[in-house]
Amino acid sequence: MDLSSMIENEARTAKAASRKLAVTRTDVKNKALLAMADALEKNENTERILAANAKDVENAKKRGTRASMIDRLALNEKRIHDMAGGLRQTASLPDPIGEVVSGTVRPNGLEIRRVRVPLGVVGIIYESRPNVTSDAIGLCVKSGNAVMLRGGSDAIESNRAIVSVLEGAAYGAGIERGAIQFIDSVDHESVGVMMGLKGLLSVIIPRGGAGLIRRVVEHSLVPVIETGSGICHTFVDESADLDMAVRIAVNAKTSRPSVCNAMETLLVHEKVAEKFLPMLAEKMRAKDVELRGDERSREIVADMKVATDEDWATEYDDLILSVKVVHSIDEAIDHINRYNTGHSETIVTRDLVNAHRFQSEVDAACVYVNASTRFTDGFEFGFGAEIGISTQRIHARGPMGLTEMTTTKYIIYGDGQIRE
Amino acid sequence: MDLSSMIENEARTAKAASRKLAVTRTDVKNKALLAMADALEKNENTERILAANAKDVENAKKRGTRASMIDRLALNEKRIHDMAGGLRQTASLPDPIGEVVSGTVRPNGLEIRRVRVPLGVVGIIYESRPNVTSDAIGLCVKSGNAVMLRGGSDAIESNRAIVSVLEGAAYGAGIERGAIQFIDSVDHESVGVMMGLKGLLSVIIPRGGAGLIRRVVEHSLVPVIETGSGICHTFVDESADLDMAVRIAVNAKTSRPSVCNAMETLLVHEKVAEKFLPMLAEKMRAKDVELRGDERSREIVADMKVATDEDWATEYDDLILSVKVVHSIDEAIDHINRYNTGHSETIVTRDLVNAHRFQSEVDAACVYVNASTRFTDGFEFGFGAEIGISTQRIHARGPMGLTEMTTTKYIIYGDGQIRE
Repeated sequence: MDLSSMIENEARTAKAASRKLAVTRTDVKNKALLAMADALEKNENTERILAANAKDVENAKKRGTRASMIDRLALNEKRIHDMAGGLRQTASLPDPIGEVVSGTVRPNGLEIRRVRVPLGVVGIIYESRPNVTSDAIGLCVKSGNAVMLRGGSDAIESNRAIVSVLEGAAYGAGIERGAIQFIDSVDHESVGVMMGLKGLLSVIIPRGGAGLIRRVVEHSLVPVIETGSGICHTFVDESADLDMAVRIAVNAKTSRPSVCNAMETLLVHEKVAEKFLPMLAEKMRAKDVELRGDERSREIVADMKVATDEDWATEYDDLILSVKVVHSIDEAIDHINRYNTGHSETIVTRDLVNAHRFQSEVDAACVYVNASTRFTDGFEFGFGAEIGISTQRIHARGPMGLTEMTTTKYIIYGDGQIRE
Repeated sequence: MDLSSMIENEARTAKAASRKLAVTRTDVKNKALLAMADALEKNENTERILAANAKDVENAKKRGTRASMIDRLALNEKRIHDMAGGLRQTASLPDPIGEVVSGTVRPNGLEIRRVRVPLGVVGIIYESRPNVTSDAIGLCVKSGNAVMLRGGSDAIESNRAIVSVLEGAAYGAGIERGAIQFIDSVDHESVGVMMGLKGLLSVIIPRGGAGLIRRVVEHSLVPVIETGSGICHTFVDESADLDMAVRIAVNAKTSRPSVCNAMETLLVHEKVAEKFLPMLAEKMRAKDVELRGDERSREIVADMKVATDEDWATEYDDLILSVKVVHSIDEAIDHINRYNTGHSETIVTRDLVNAHRFQSEVDAACVYVNASTRFTDGFEFGFGAEIGISTQRIHARGPMGLTEMTTTKYIIYGDGQIRE
């Protein structure tokens, strides 16, 4: 059978299974999640996964993959325990399915309830990190969704082993067979096939680099939820507590520069720039951050590199920060609304009106006052888990927890009503 | 300037205006809606719109357009009053913008609120009915969205006149200039241009025939909300009150056969088919409905035409009904889940377990017990207005009111929090 037919068949199987999974009770789903967690930690399974992962790491090294990518790929016992811990935490979360979102009785006696139901089959296309495999399966099972996974080719051995362990445990615990589908192919075309499965997949969530996300958005017939692209800003207002501003900026830039909620550009009000930028530069230098400034910034801190228009539009994901002096909060808001990706933005200020204006007028999923953008995260927001951070506006915006993996359905009771 | 640059410029203008409209107060928006309603009913404006509409109708007749389409296109004073009434009703609805959907304080003191905000710029591509122009503008203004309209070429004169009257009134009442954009071109390519405006349009809602919707879904880079495709079923269970079942079926098929919530296929349990189908056939014949049956149905009612597999997959939008006898509720649910478009389905039954199973297992936006599918409608559901009926699962499902024209944003207050 060719790749395309094989994947379509898997999707049909997933869709059929999704109908059963949608009406599977919470206690069965939770039992399955705990069984999956236990299975990961069983010695023979842990060893099997680590052996598979060692092959992936070896292959990556042979290809000359850079160290930071190998770190994302590599598993060890602790990381497998963390995956199991994630599944147990997902088991402990409330089940969103069945929630009555609203309900009314119409004048004609029709009783209308809007209830939460699963999306159906969720397609996830991701890169590198094998823990996504376990997280995604856990979140889909809990939210009653079948799942079709297409992981990165560099993690194929690890992903195959993880899926094999998890689906065995899930099906053994009563999850409908076929609800977990893994595309066991490194053929690039498999992504294209998934994107054509309209009517079988309800949604595709790409998790990975900008190139992957662009490709999926441009070509998918299945609705897409865009995640993870983050050009995040910190604006230091004229009334800011400058020590706090330095702490927030350093945290936003350096605590984990490769992630989407890290800061890429700092804007500072001209009235405090002369005092603030040297303070900032000293701390950033100590963390090996390369600074790139506009003209005014470089007048204040001479050894900054030159920031071009391209810098404002770049997600470095690295220890690089672009810096710009602005004349007003309006200029700051305009700059952010022009260059941001709709992810996370923060203002450091003591001014009530400016704080309110910034939060109202900046167009992003998460807008902070006096805190680091690094908090944009399902766990930090208290969702207990996260399938990604949506930077689009429809369906889900910001960290996506279990609720964002559902849709609703209207259930209407009558006693013979007809419409005049 | 070429068409593509012109439309892109209009979209940029709309996007800029959307930022102002997003923070425009409810009283200003309501005043604008009332001013728009008054403007429509001003004699000179009514006459101008009717004169423009007369041209459209004349052109349609010249092209040999069929009577039912001309009826959808034609305006008269009453229809213009109804448009004004719709705007006034929209003014009277609660403003969804600013609603605090949820809010928590995290252990680290971060205060997180999720608030409702507009989508941004809503693109609407529609056919024929000029009242959609007024409805769509009203709903977008109320929900704080800028709007880009692309109506059908057959209604271009009417739409141009309506938009001109409404935007004058809206801008005069304080709505940001540029928030209402109308693509004044019958060039088919304009639809293609709109579909490429990713980053400027937040969403495109196509309203029209299956061909239009398919084209938009397949080619749009902007997220799409699919609306209006409806292969709706009525299942007459063995325990049904058969008189009620006939009333519901006749209403679902004949009260307005051209709309998406009309029934296309009736399924009946074999245990009651012999009694029910003759009752049904008599009433349907009296309403000039053509019946097409499977083999067993035609054994009972001899003069039915033959229903083929194609019939099960057809939205007639006409006085035609396909009929099938099923052996069980399972067969009914399977048939519906195979052929429906996810719109509206109903079961007529007295059986508690079957009612519950049908509502749980049938996969559609609206699932009824003992009522006509014709109730799937924003007004009937009590939303007061409707931009369309979504048959997809993400973002919105079922009738879309003002709330479905919004997204949310996280607003986070801190006092210097950084992430460890």
